Amino acid sequence: MDPKDGKRTGSCSSPVCVNNPHLDAMKDDILYHFSLGTRTHDLPAMFGDVKFVCVGGSPWRMKSFIEYIAAELSMEDPESEYPNICAGTDRYAMYKIGPVLSVSHGMGIPSIAIMLHELIKLLHHARCTDVTIIRIGTSGGIGLGPGTVVITKQSVDATFLPKFEQVILGKTVVRNTDLDQSLAEELLQCSKELNQFETVIGNTMCTLDFYEGQARLDGAFCSYTEKDKQDYLKKANEAGVCNIEMESSVFAAMCKLSGLRAAVVCVTLLDRLKGDQLNSSHEVLQDYQQRPQILVGSYIKKQLRAKAGRS
Amino acid sequence: MDPKDGKRTGSCSSPVCVNNPHLDAMKDDILYHFSLGTRTHDLPAMFGDVKFVCVGGSPWRMKSFIEYIAAELSMEDPESEYPNICAGTDRYAMYKIGPVLSVSHGMGIPSIAIMLHELIKLLHHARCTDVTIIRIGTSGGIGLGPGTVVITKQSVDATFLPKFEQVILGKTVVRNTDLDQSLAEELLQCSKELNQFETVIGNTMCTLDFYEGQARLDGAFCSYTEKDKQDYLKKANEAGVCNIEMESSVFAAMCKLSGLRAAVVCVTLLDRLKGDQLNSSHEVLQDYQQRPQILVGSYIKKQLRAKAGRS
Repeated sequence: MDPKDGKRTGSCSSPVCVNNPHLDAMKDDILYHFSLGTRTHDLPAMFGDVKFVCVGGSPWRMKSFIEYIAAELSMEDPESEYPNICAGTDRYAMYKIGPVLSVSHGMGIPSIAIMLHELIKLLHHARCTDVTIIRIGTSGGIGLGPGTVVITKQSVDATFLPKFEQVILGKTVVRNTDLDQSLAEELLQCSKELNQFETVIGNTMCTLDFYEGQARLDGAFCSYTEKDKQDYLKKANEAGVCNIEMESSVFAAMCKLSGLRAAVVCVTLLDRLKGDQLNSSHEVLQDYQQRPQILVGSYIKKQLRAKAGRS
Repeated sequence: MDPKDGKRTGSCSSPVCVNNPHLDAMKDDILYHFSLGTRTHDLPAMFGDVKFVCVGGSPWRMKSFIEYIAAELSMEDPESEYPNICAGTDRYAMYKIGPVLSVSHGMGIPSIAIMLHELIKLLHHARCTDVTIIRIGTSGGIGLGPGTVVITKQSVDATFLPKFEQVILGKTVVRNTDLDQSLAEELLQCSKELNQFETVIGNTMCTLDFYEGQARLDGAFCSYTEKDKQDYLKKANEAGVCNIEMESSVFAAMCKLSGLRAAVVCVTLLDRLKGDQLNSSHEVLQDYQQRPQILVGSYIKKQLRAKAGRS
């Protein structure tokens, strides 16, 4: 294996691809928003064993996820807290236990895109192979009971088309937003076995805005009627949209470009056909938010057991 | 004054406008991403005296700003820390001292847009008047020495046009990104009086991405050459662009719609014609990042002194 370009020969393991010829010429790579770098950190030693990456908007939720997964995998350390690997910055938080990495990404496409550029480079520099990445998030549902978990089939834009538009040097490049269908099916199977909450596979609409961009009536500005809103959400539903969030399109596009097996698993916090405000109790919302992590935790445990059985 | 719609009669004070007829019909308004609400919090008592709002990406920087401004205004409380008003959530952080509110907004247009929707509603519910709002941030410069402070004249998109495209019900609406020119001039005058660092007024390019969107060569993906990058940045510079960041366009558009007097003050951390990586020392970057807060702190102090002199 040439550690410089991450290409492997005589092995069926799948590396994490970067598509950037300029990186080879760089002596040093500073992953600024992680406060990590190739000169200052031994990335292969720190991250070389990573097989599962879970990402989500909230740093608190990603800390809670690593605590949960440590308990699930019986890898808790009663002596210590899980340290934030990105403690030198407040842009993102990152935690690791065994082969599982948990990273926060903030809200919206630009925020998760910065994180993914640096995460993909990190996994590449660390020479990770066969990595599965799953976004665990929250969303607004359309015609689903609150608390339903949606595994994304395709991420679609605000006109219900499965594409992500990336602006490069002022010009728009269209990227594919397909996710790994076999991974989605495996996750759905896991949820059936768990039998704790409703889970469906469906399309996810990814928007650049939470209020006007998602047809909410409760933002600072609103120029449309309740009927306009209902008509738009119903059209989305007819196009196969089960839920709405703000990161899945660029997540799908970037993971596909880098050869990462990727899934998006979001719980719906409310049914947008019935309202806009998140007025369920704190306890109910907390319970809903744990569902994607329970599902993904169960999936990771099953994969690691199967792998241990094979070796 | 009718407290319900915030309209004032017989006064020249300027309210914070919401443009949403649906809000009047709501019994309660939950500002979900602030973990605040009209039923659970007395917003006029908590925020009614706010005259200056400073926003920036990093929660740490916005806490440091409130400590700095408290010292500048001789309003420190040696007995206590400044509490995070949004302690119930990790989405944004908010601090207040006297008439100054400091709020973090994360990275990118969607993240700052969610914050601004809820901030504008908060200021409206709190019946604030004559509010000035300033974004203090970091940016990449074009042809400027690192550490230069740029006060934004117009926020332009990746094709150098002064507009923000908001998608509403799947259709694109174009919004104006003009900022308050007299406020920009007053800030420039303040910097001249301070005489501590270079400050210019110029256009700011606002992008949806930090790597490919800003012509960087060091992302996970890059399909263009160093020459393509230089050509694009030079064209931007010829169109009047002095710096590049990721929030100014929607900030300008939303502040204009709500009648807030607004400015964007960003320091340049590097000259993008000379490189892409942020490889200055931590101390140097810290020093640069303090410059917008020193300038805005001085402006607020001057305004409050002038007001005290008039009354």
